[in-house]
This record gives sequence, C-alpha cells and structure tokens, in this order.
Amino acid sequence: MSIWPVLDDADLPERASAVIEDIKTTRNTDFINNFWRVLANDPALLERTWGSLKEVMGPGEIDPVMKEMLYVAVSIVNGCEYCIRSHTAAARAKGMSEAQLGELLAIVGMASETNRLATALQVPVDEAFLPKTSGKD
Amino acid sequence: MSIWPVLDDADLPERASAVIEDIKTTRNTDFINNFWRVLANDPALLERTWGSLKEVMGPGEIDPVMKEMLYVAVSIVNGCEYCIRSHTAAARAKGMSEAQLGELLAIVGMASETNRLATALQVPVDEAFLPKTSGKD
Amino acid sequence: MSIWPVLDDADLPERASAVIEDIKTTRNTDFINNFWRVLANDPALLERTWGSLKEVMGPGEIDPVMKEMLYVAVSIVNGCEYCIRSHTAAARAKGMSEAQLGELLAIVGMASETNRLATALQVPVDEAFLPKTSGKD
Amino acid sequence: MSIWPVLDDADLPERASAVIEDIKTTRNTDFINNFWRVLANDPALLERTWGSLKEVMGPGEIDPVMKEMLYVAVSIVNGCEYCIRSHTAAARAKGMSEAQLGELLAIVGMASETNRLATALQVPVDEAFLPKTSGKD
Amino acid sequence: MSIWPVLDDADLPERASAVIEDIKTTRNTDFINNFWRVLANDPALLERTWGSLKEVMGPGEIDPVMKEMLYVAVSIVNGCEYCIRSHTAAARAKGMSEAQLGELLAIVGMASETNRLATALQVPVDEAFLPKTSGKD
Amino acid sequence: MSIWPVLDDADLPERASAVIEDIKTTRNTDFINNFWRVLANDPALLERTWGSLKEVMGPGEIDPVMKEMLYVAVSIVNGCEYCIRSHTAAARAKGMSEAQLGELLAIVGMASETNRLATALQVPVDEAFLPKTSGKD
Repeated sequence: MSIWPVLDDADLPERASAVIEDIKTTRNTDFINNFWRVLANDPALLERTWGSLKEVMGPGEIDPVMKEMLYVAVSIVNGCEYCIRSHTAAARAKGMSEAQLGELLAIVGMASETNRLATALQVPVDEAFLPKTSGKD
Repeated sequence: MSIWPVLDDADLPERASAVIEDIKTTRNTDFINNFWRVLANDPALLERTWGSLKEVMGPGEIDPVMKEMLYVAVSIVNGCEYCIRSHTAAARAKGMSEAQLGELLAIVGMASETNRLATALQVPVDEAFLPKTSGKD
Repeated sequence: MSIWPVLDDADLPERASAVIEDIKTTRNTDFINNFWRVLANDPALLERTWGSLKEVMGPGEIDPVMKEMLYVAVSIVNGCEYCIRSHTAAARAKGMSEAQLGELLAIVGMASETNRLATALQVPVDEAFLPKTSGKD
Repeated sequence: MSIWPVLDDADLPERASAVIEDIKTTRNTDFINNFWRVLANDPALLERTWGSLKEVMGPGEIDPVMKEMLYVAVSIVNGCEYCIRSHTAAARAKGMSEAQLGELLAIVGMASETNRLATALQVPVDEAFLPKTSGKD
Repeated sequence: MSIWPVLDDADLPERASAVIEDIKTTRNTDFINNFWRVLANDPALLERTWGSLKEVMGPGEIDPVMKEMLYVAVSIVNGCEYCIRSHTAAARAKGMSEAQLGELLAIVGMASETNRLATALQVPVDEAFLPKTSGKD
Repeated sequence: MSIWPVLDDADLPERASAVIEDIKTTRNTDFINNFWRVLANDPALLERTWGSLKEVMGPGEIDPVMKEMLYVAVSIVNGCEYCIRSHTAAARAKGMSEAQLGELLAIVGMASETNRLATALQVPVDEAFLPKTSGKD
C-alpha cells in the first residue's frame, strides 16, 4: 500500500488527466505504470516530473537504451526497488541484452568498490584530471 | 594527504611493481594515477582491484565510452570526488562530448529525483515489471 | 520477520519495561509501535535511543509538525521504509496536510537532483556562502 | 576547479543569459552563485533546473524558512558540501535562528541513527502506519 | 522474484557449476544461498565475485567473526536487506553473541549520527589526524 | 571554515565547558578535537552526543580496536572525510595494524560491491536466513 492511492483513470483530477493522456500519446501505449498513478494525487508534481522526464529521456546524444541503463545504474545506487524494476524492464524493452545487463551490474559493483576505496584512503586528485584553470575559479 | 602515502615507482613493493607494469602495458602509457599508487601500499588489494577492473572495463557488449559514463554516474551517486574527476577525464579521453556529459548529468539528476519520489511514496511494483514466475522463487 | 523478535509487554526485560512505560506516558497512548518493541531486546540501546528521541523531538524552536516533516525527509534519503511510514503517519497525526506532503516530496526530489548536479560538476563554494573567518580556522 | 567553467555574464550563451536574468529578477539581486554559472554551460539543463526550483521553492503551504531547512537536511544526507553551505546561508538569510539550526542538526542526526537501526533490525511496519486499503492496491 | 532466475544445480551453466562446487568445498556445506544461484546467470560475474570474496573473507589479520560484523555494518549503511540478513546469519553462525550484535547496532547508529553532524557543520580536520607529510603529496 | 566556529576553551559556554572537561578526563588527554569544539556551540547537542558516544564506545563485548574499525567502516560508506580521518587515527592509536586496515578496506569495498549486486538483482532472501517465526510477527 502506497502512501497515496494508485488512481484509476476515473479518479484522476482533471489537471492530472491531461498529463496521463500525454504520457499515453508520447509512449504510444495505454499502459500507465503505478508511479504516475500515485504522483497524480499531486497534479503539479506529476506535471513537472513528467515534463522533465519527457525532455531528459527523449532523443539526444546518448542512445535510448544507454539512457535507460544509466537510469538503472543510478537507481541501484540510490536503492530504489521500484525504479530498478521499472527501468530494467524499459531497458530490456528497448533492446538491452542480458549480457549487457551483466556488464552493467559488473560496472556498478566495481565502481561502488573503488568509490569506497578512494574515499577511505582520501586519494588526492591528480593534476592531470583537473580542468585547465581559467582566470576565474 | 592520503591515509597511505602515494608511492613513487622506486618505493613500490615488488608484488605491486608487477601490477603497475601491467597497468602501463594495458593502458599503453607511463602515467599511473594516484589511486593505484596509494593502493600499492597493500599489494594484494592492488592486484585484486586491478585484476577486476581490467576485466570489467575491458572489451565487451557495452561501448567503452558508455562504460566510463556508467562509472561516472555511479561515482556521482556514491559521492566520490576522486572517481568523478578521474572517470570524467577518462570518458572525455575516449570520446564523450560535452553534450553527452550534459545528458548524463540530466539523467543522474532526474533519476535521483524520481528514485526519492518512488521511495517516499512506496509505490507498489506493477505486475508488468516483474519477471515471469518460474516454479522456484 | 525482524532480526530480533517483536516483544509483547509480557516478555519485556525489566529495564525495557520502564522505558516502554515512559513512552506510553510521554505520548499519552497505550500504543507502542514495533520499533520500540524490537529495540527492547537490548534495554541499554532502547533506553539511550528513546532518551535522545524524547529530547530531540520534544518542544523547541521548530514546530512539531515541521520536526516530523524533517524526520520524513531524512528517512526518504536514507531509504528506510519503516521510518518513512511511521513518521509520515506521525506528521499527518500532528496536522500535516496532503498539500504540505506534496511540497515536502517536491523539495526532497529537487534537492536530490541539484545535490547530484553540484557534486557531479564539483561547483566551487562561493565566498559569499562561507562564514566570516575568525582568527582560528 | 569545477568540471565545467564558472561563466561570467559576458560568456553566457544567449539562452542561458535569459535564465540568469530571470534568477536576478525573481530573487531581486545581482548576485548569481556559482551553481547557476556552471550549469549555464548547458542552457537546457540550466533552464529546466531553474524552472523547477523556482516553482518548488516558491510560495506554498510550507513556510519559506522551513523549505530551506528541508533543503539543508536533504543536502546533508546526500553529502553535498556546496548545497549544505548555500542552503544554510539561504535559510539564515530568510530568518533561521542558530537555535533552529541546532535542532535541525539534532533531527538529521537522530533520524539517521534510527533509520539505520530500523533497517538493521528489519522492523516490520505496524498495521497502524499503513494507509487504509482501497480496493485497488 | 529476482531480476534473473534462481538457478537449481541442474540448470547451472558449466562454468558456473565449477564455481558453485568450489563454494560448497570451501564452505564445507551443500547449502548454496540464492545470491550465488542468481549470479550464476552470468558465469564470469559469478566467478570474479566469488574469487574476490573467498580471498577477502578468508583467514587474515582480522578475526572471522569481526569480518562478518564489518560486512553487516557496511550492508546496513548501504541499505541491502539481503546482505544484512545473510551476513547477520553468518556472523551468528561464527559466534557473534546477541550482546555483540547490540553493540554493533549501537556503533552503526552512533557513527551515522556523528557522520551527519560532522558533514553538516563542515568541521575542519585537525592537524593531529593528518598523516605526516611526505615530500610528495 | 566550519558552519559554526571552532571554540577555544576560553569561549566555551559554561554547560559546554563541563562536557569538554569530561572528555578530557575520560580520554586522559588535554587534546580536544575540532568536532567537539564545533558542537560546543550548541551545548545540549554536545552533551547528548558525547553522552551517547561515551557509552557506545566504552568497554563492552566488542574489542576497542574493533569498535573503532567498525566506526571507520560506517564513516567510509556515509562519506564523511572528517570521521574517516579521526577514527582511522583513533584505531591506529589503539593498535590497528596497517595490514588490518588493508583488510578493513577490502571488506568495505567487497561488501559495497555485493550490496549493489544483491539490490540490483533483487535476490530473494533464503528461508535459512530468516529468524524462526514466533507467533507474533
């Protein structure tokens, strides 16, 4: 049971209804997952979140499958089960192979390991990794 | 100042020296960044960490630039400055454009936002996102 | 099933029993939630935790509803389902409106997004945000 | 040195310049902190981030000082120094007293402690904290 | 339901089967917990993970019970229920008393509290805590 | 520069002064590190924090060196530089060898890696790891 109810189409506030329609059109499907149906309890939050997501996950310089895989990686580290499951499903639907998922998991695990080591040892940043100083900062 | 000293080539324990040589050969460079020079104080830890990293970040089903970008994403969420800087430098060296970096940042920010919302609201996972049940679990 | 059992009143160690009584008196209720009934397996830990919580969440300069809302915000970022649910319930009981909850969620999401961006980009702290230097540090 | 340069007004891309002007107008000040000057390297990211922040931190059901305090709390848990410093400064500017800051810190510390305890012990959520089941979920 | 199926012995790929046999031999048991049976879907990942774990958790300078307790502490902070439960069970099996578990929990809670306070206040590191400067860093 | 000033003995509020004296007596030293000198700006917070720390880190069922090592492990995962440095120094002062520090780092890294894998794959908890059900929960 979520903190706010999962709203059926019939129970959507009008402003939320328009957003849900835009999700259906953009994704070319009638399936609306629970995340949006729960956010719909606060139409302003729903509208802003969907507006940003639509822009961020839309066409760009990074391949759509890779965008989903980056989303999965972040969701793992933030520990969000819902997001891990929904974006793993989305990545698969867009073409991620199980071998790619295995590599993704290996990178997330490996990076988490070396992140902790570098933090634990307080390794100083190499000059070579710093952007060239401009006059200002 | 790091917790363990940054070792010069001359100060490397013998077992660490062999690993450092392998890093130079594998990466085709004489530049060894501080992370490895600090880990070298514990040769077993250095050897195991490099052995795994070499395998995980080597050729596979995910593009090398994308592998670095996934590494950057995880490092941001884990809050490791050293790793953010070193892997952003590596991703740029392998061809990541600034526009791609911008999209990466947008995804990390957006995912962190929706990760918190889904966790906060305890959104139930949709049936559609669950793998088909096998007999076992 | 929790790591330690949820203790009924009859099973409480004597030292734990006194703490549980103080919780009932302080909160003016007979309902003791599972967190305390599990902690009761280690009476010293229970006593110290309740002692601090009673002081921290007691009357002060921040409004009681706001104190609960801060508790919810921290619990979301730390990813603790139990704490999210119990303190959201407490905040509602003390008067938090659903509109306020929506704003709370929006802030937690937004802050998590900009936190990641500032960390990712390693934005230098503005002079204007630093406390005036005293002689010492 | 940040990953992207801190842009002076003279170096702002045109689309970024319009956003920076809106920040100045909205906040009624000529001071633009580094976060925005770094984000300005990606005008779309700047525009979207400011657009959301303006809405989220604008007038609403939660007091403006409290909104900043919630932002500080989240930034502490996410471990973002820049955000801790900038939003602590903002909270003070809007009227947060040092006694309130002390209480905020106490709550963030206390919640982090009990969050870990509840997670460690896997305390089951009390029935009393679950929203009443609707037919659906 | 996990993202990848929990594989029975009969369904293990050959390369995974050899690793599973090594776990059984090393641990002197026929019980293989789900973590390994899920990882077995990617034999290379399974092999590398088990190889490292075997080395890290094997005999050394830290007592085996203490190694498990450190594992539990990290798993709590990273918020991994599976790992909390499996390593708490392992620590108990190796001799951890309930009183020691109580002290472990108290330390994890206390450290999380002071970690947040030190981060929130941006306390400057004391000279006394810095390693003596060598020439290099 | 910390958010609150680092207070010299001469500037301590009276209630804080008593706590600082107790720290000196308990630790049998005149050296008071910055964490306490900053907390001293809020005497109630100082008093409560020290009171708990003194109890938690005092004699018990876990060896004092191990207690400090657990504190270091938690501080790494929470990403607190101050705490990593101060408790690593404390652990060394109490007898932690560099070989033990190496093993501690290996465990923190390894656990962070498997924590992410178990979370990513949503591995179901084995029956064998669950406490026997009592009637209640």
